[in-house]
Amino acid sequence: MSSAEKPLIGHLVIVGVGLIGGSVSLALKKAGVVGHVTGVGRNRDNLELAQRIGIVDAWTHDVGEAVRDADVVLLAVPMSAYASVFAAMAKTLPEHAVVTDAGSTKQSTIIAANKFLPGPERFIAAHPIAGTEKSGAGAAFAELYEKRLCVITPVGDSSATALALVMQLWEKTGSRVVTMDAAEHDDFLASVSHLPHLAAFALVNAVRRQKSEGHDPFCFAAGGFRDFTRIASSSPEMWRDIALSNRDALLGQLDAFQQELNGMREALLADDADRLLKEFSAAREAREAWLAKHGDGL
Amino acid sequence: MSSAEKPLIGHLVIVGVGLIGGSVSLALKKAGVVGHVTGVGRNRDNLELAQRIGIVDAWTHDVGEAVRDADVVLLAVPMSAYASVFAAMAKTLPEHAVVTDAGSTKQSTIIAANKFLPGPERFIAAHPIAGTEKSGAGAAFAELYEKRLCVITPVGDSSATALALVMQLWEKTGSRVVTMDAAEHDDFLASVSHLPHLAAFALVNAVRRQKSEGHDPFCFAAGGFRDFTRIASSSPEMWRDIALSNRDALLGQLDAFQQELNGMREALLADDADRLLKEFSAAREAREAWLAKHGDGL
Repeated sequence: MSSAEKPLIGHLVIVGVGLIGGSVSLALKKAGVVGHVTGVGRNRDNLELAQRIGIVDAWTHDVGEAVRDADVVLLAVPMSAYASVFAAMAKTLPEHAVVTDAGSTKQSTIIAANKFLPGPERFIAAHPIAGTEKSGAGAAFAELYEKRLCVITPVGDSSATALALVMQLWEKTGSRVVTMDAAEHDDFLASVSHLPHLAAFALVNAVRRQKSEGHDPFCFAAGGFRDFTRIASSSPEMWRDIALSNRDALLGQLDAFQQELNGMREALLADDADRLLKEFSAAREAREAWLAKHGDGL
Repeated sequence: MSSAEKPLIGHLVIVGVGLIGGSVSLALKKAGVVGHVTGVGRNRDNLELAQRIGIVDAWTHDVGEAVRDADVVLLAVPMSAYASVFAAMAKTLPEHAVVTDAGSTKQSTIIAANKFLPGPERFIAAHPIAGTEKSGAGAAFAELYEKRLCVITPVGDSSATALALVMQLWEKTGSRVVTMDAAEHDDFLASVSHLPHLAAFALVNAVRRQKSEGHDPFCFAAGGFRDFTRIASSSPEMWRDIALSNRDALLGQLDAFQQELNGMREALLADDADRLLKEFSAAREAREAWLAKHGDGL
């Protein structure tokens, strides 16, 4: 960025300087589209580290103070903290400032913005579908979002200029940006992400409760079990928040899954080899087709 | 093996010369405990390949002919073929010969042996918990069973000498041999292996049926989904056979899993954050404990 040009985003405030927020800053800095970055958080060591490695130019613990001259604010905190963060910035957020986020569910996020932000039309909800198992500023890297999908879910009242700016921001991180309805996003993510997490936690608990004297069923678990349950090693706190913030969509997907399981049960009870083969084959084909189309980007 | 010594197994007949059967032969040859190995199968190309790469010394399509002077017979065919293979060897199997297998479920295997074999006390059921996603003689390798668990499930009528020989055979492949009750084995394997496969197939089908115009939920699937559903790319035919051959245990484990899911549903409906956190945390801890204890051997 030459000093003569005005950057796309003059002052970016990132609330929550971890893997997600930190990687946005590094990507935008690398793309040369951001002027000054202020980090907000509670953990002093993490914030100092973020400044030392060039993620933020300054930091503070005070959200209200930080957003006072912000152009864009990015929320990258657990979704259980959204209400309090929105409330904390309500009085000092400039009228021109645009707010976006990186949370895993979108309807609840929009509801919280409508309730707590003075200009909710300038909140544009986003969900970059990327992450690693690591956390904290030290885990951030500029390439995290490259070629990943970022779903943006504007509503009828959204400001067109705010939407355009937020789309540019996420595109500049390297994401493939798509816009869609928040409810549809929440359904799809419940289906391919939130439900699998719930099911993995549930399956490990079923095995755990079966542990008896003498023998331990876990002794017989192999590579298939390891892969199937990998997501059951995810953060319980984060997944509690996601499950509750997307409760209705998740309940709907849980219904659909239990219907499938009931179908499998019926086929087993009836010794219906043809039906089992048909169901197993259809699943295998669908998965292989998905991998062929999307496997490279994983 | 010096020519002066008599090997543990003079003549081994392997019915089904694929990854599982072929690897047993290679491991026993490497250990120097087998004299002559005859392979039995239907696919001529596969059998010729097996002979060329030293898995078998001879081969035939005829089970009855092959077992005529066998000391040990190993079944390594799909479980749906057990009845016909047992029946085919019934007339020619020598009285001293011992039979073992490598199938994933054990009660149904024992029932089939009791029904079709003339001397069922000399059938010792085994389940080596090992495998790769590949199949065929070309995929076999001598180290497949090294340090893997091999569960042997003798019954009250089992011949003690047959049991001793089969235990030695599997130990010589490098397995860690344990004996246990067939019903308990089937319950545990239903829990940590068969149910996860059923659940992975069911989950992919739930997503598949949700595909609508315009948007495809698979587009939003990422690494977690890939790992969770990896086993849904397994052979539909093999898993149909396993599911049906272990039907009752699998139905029991499916009940236990659906109870866990119902518990999650109740917690979601009640917005019970504490209960969700407790369940998710317990699952995570159990999985981490399992990995700490058994992760190296996977």
